[in-house]
Amino acid sequence: MKKLITLVAGLVIGGLSAFAQQALYGGPQVESPVINPDGTVTFRYQAPKAVKVEVTGDFLPTEKVEVEFNGQKMAFDAPGVGVLKEGQNGVWEYTTPFKVAPELYNYTFRVDGNTVIDPNNMWVNRDVASLTSVLLVPEAGARSDLYAIHAVPHGTVSKVWYHSDKQGFDRRLTVYTPAGYETSKAKYPVLYVLHGIGGDEDAWVTQGRATQILDNLIARGEAKPMIVVFTNGNISQEAAPLENSTGYTRPTMSLPQTMEGTFETAFPEIVKFIDSRYRTLAKKQFRAICGLSMGGFHTLNISLNYPDLFNYSGMFSAAIGVTDPSISPMYQDFDRKLAAYFAKKPALLWIGIGRTDFLIQSNNEFRAKLDAAGYPYKYMETDGGHIWRNWRIYLSEFVPLLFK
Amino acid sequence: MKKLITLVAGLVIGGLSAFAQQALYGGPQVESPVINPDGTVTFRYQAPKAVKVEVTGDFLPTEKVEVEFNGQKMAFDAPGVGVLKEGQNGVWEYTTPFKVAPELYNYTFRVDGNTVIDPNNMWVNRDVASLTSVLLVPEAGARSDLYAIHAVPHGTVSKVWYHSDKQGFDRRLTVYTPAGYETSKAKYPVLYVLHGIGGDEDAWVTQGRATQILDNLIARGEAKPMIVVFTNGNISQEAAPLENSTGYTRPTMSLPQTMEGTFETAFPEIVKFIDSRYRTLAKKQFRAICGLSMGGFHTLNISLNYPDLFNYSGMFSAAIGVTDPSISPMYQDFDRKLAAYFAKKPALLWIGIGRTDFLIQSNNEFRAKLDAAGYPYKYMETDGGHIWRNWRIYLSEFVPLLFK
Repeated sequence: MKKLITLVAGLVIGGLSAFAQQALYGGPQVESPVINPDGTVTFRYQAPKAVKVEVTGDFLPTEKVEVEFNGQKMAFDAPGVGVLKEGQNGVWEYTTPFKVAPELYNYTFRVDGNTVIDPNNMWVNRDVASLTSVLLVPEAGARSDLYAIHAVPHGTVSKVWYHSDKQGFDRRLTVYTPAGYETSKAKYPVLYVLHGIGGDEDAWVTQGRATQILDNLIARGEAKPMIVVFTNGNISQEAAPLENSTGYTRPTMSLPQTMEGTFETAFPEIVKFIDSRYRTLAKKQFRAICGLSMGGFHTLNISLNYPDLFNYSGMFSAAIGVTDPSISPMYQDFDRKLAAYFAKKPALLWIGIGRTDFLIQSNNEFRAKLDAAGYPYKYMETDGGHIWRNWRIYLSEFVPLLFK
Repeated sequence: MKKLITLVAGLVIGGLSAFAQQALYGGPQVESPVINPDGTVTFRYQAPKAVKVEVTGDFLPTEKVEVEFNGQKMAFDAPGVGVLKEGQNGVWEYTTPFKVAPELYNYTFRVDGNTVIDPNNMWVNRDVASLTSVLLVPEAGARSDLYAIHAVPHGTVSKVWYHSDKQGFDRRLTVYTPAGYETSKAKYPVLYVLHGIGGDEDAWVTQGRATQILDNLIARGEAKPMIVVFTNGNISQEAAPLENSTGYTRPTMSLPQTMEGTFETAFPEIVKFIDSRYRTLAKKQFRAICGLSMGGFHTLNISLNYPDLFNYSGMFSAAIGVTDPSISPMYQDFDRKLAAYFAKKPALLWIGIGRTDFLIQSNNEFRAKLDAAGYPYKYMETDGGHIWRNWRIYLSEFVPLLFK
């Protein structure tokens, strides 16, 4: 047995890059984050020579922050800061003075002003151009339990490429097929889920936990089994950053054709691809679309321009307001298209937004227009602003209403 | 148009978490890493109050490092260190004094002794329990060009769950179906690819760049279109860390049933699942298996115990040596099984290992045994040790030999 132990040790040490040795053998490991029995959370960071170590993340109460852009000042909610104290062996520590509510959070450390992720937490999400560490506080019965992985049947999550005739190149989608799809002969309804500005076809399955939400809602019997398609709304891109043949793409203010009509114009070719590739119920009655922020704007315009395509539309913190008709034919004749859309009696228009979202005014104006015309819709208002926490809530609320 | 610009700015600033603001608007962005026109690479890290900033990674020449485990000293190759110098605005910088050869590299910074990834590089891989930043230096004609994404037809990459009757729970696989699979009616050969100790079903598609290698080799006509299945060899786990219903799993020395025979014993149920789920050519002639390190050991034992299953077997830096028959019936009667395996004339046994790999002696002993018995095999010896660079090379060499 000694030979086995030596060999296994050799494999573990030698078989890893030298980077990993530290995590496995570099003395007492720093555990971070830790959810304590009393519900507080402790964050730790080892930095013996640091002067100041802070943690920031959306588990902390928010503060108002002013950002100046193009000479204009804009106020946004930014998470507060927790200050770590140095303890033994240069390990800095911060424990929240409150029970952290069940939720999925993102956080980073600031070490002497420099933002770094938690080196002791393998769970990292890319949020546009930044990496953040992730903390999930699930609790049986709490909504965040939907975001956890449970021992329930799991759908298949695929990265799939379709050819865009409009763009002349292949583009990537994320496709969820529910548990049982592959062994069934049944046809399935389809939900299309759109990301916000700066996001891509990965965003809803990383930050959004959409496939966990679907697995869990379907397993509970609270949602119908459905195919879910996560598109890339940056129509000039093949795929998410690092997945392009054009190399590394760093998000900048030169946006990749996001809100100028091309994505909406090209959307039917995605529906056509999905209907040809998967066993779908290829009718308006069995199609839904939703999106967050820019994706909510896309959702509205796609729904209005193709009123025979989608029976259910969900606008999550939608970026309503870009209706300058000179930008694209997609944005022309808004009121006429809205009337034509409702004349066809869609099963559901669902609107969700946070009370402190900077887009609430334009959403209120849009709802006033709907109210004045007597157009029906469902509305949900939540705490907080333009944040992923809300978009996960909206998806969890929207999905159970579909295809019933 | 002003309204549009303001709205888009609002979306970009407000629509991101506050974390992302820094990357997009936090003053002049630090670019790191940068491949310079002369082929050197510059690494930068902003840390105005740091005392010492170093970079370490496998782009640097290696140094011998001694590790003590269970009272035994073991020597391993560890990458060297580059020391960054502080410049303006607290931005530290290091430029390699040499042209960095085309390859895929992993690196991290050490800031005052603390290991952190590059906050300006979104490309991060999890390597067992650690995160590392990734640098790809591709070059037309160089092997590393196989690891880059090109504008060629892309296969579909899926995370798929199968039910393990042996274990009594669902387990996750990564499955690659080649471009054209979904629209073809043809049946395809299947390659099973196994990871090393501490790895999982993600390892070969992140660190291994296996799906890029497959896409590119198939597009060049250098490999047959094939289905590729990446298993999880930690048989007591459902899935990779963070994908388990049992919560966060941190790799430790209590290994999740890795080299005690259960994975090999249960392997036929994976083959059965794949043959039932996909359009496979379900015959030995059209099946291949390969693996790195522990996965090479698994490959050998699966090939010997099920000599009618695989026609092609690839052992990459294989952890040969655990043959104590008391551990599992899988490891009994090795010589007899070896003879029976070769009596059935498999199309290929392929062995690859690095010259400085700590496993080269046991591989040499195994080859001596094959030579003495006149058993045929192909052999490749490369520079370096027990590292991903070699495993990517071996996969690139092995795949073109299959199903011809």
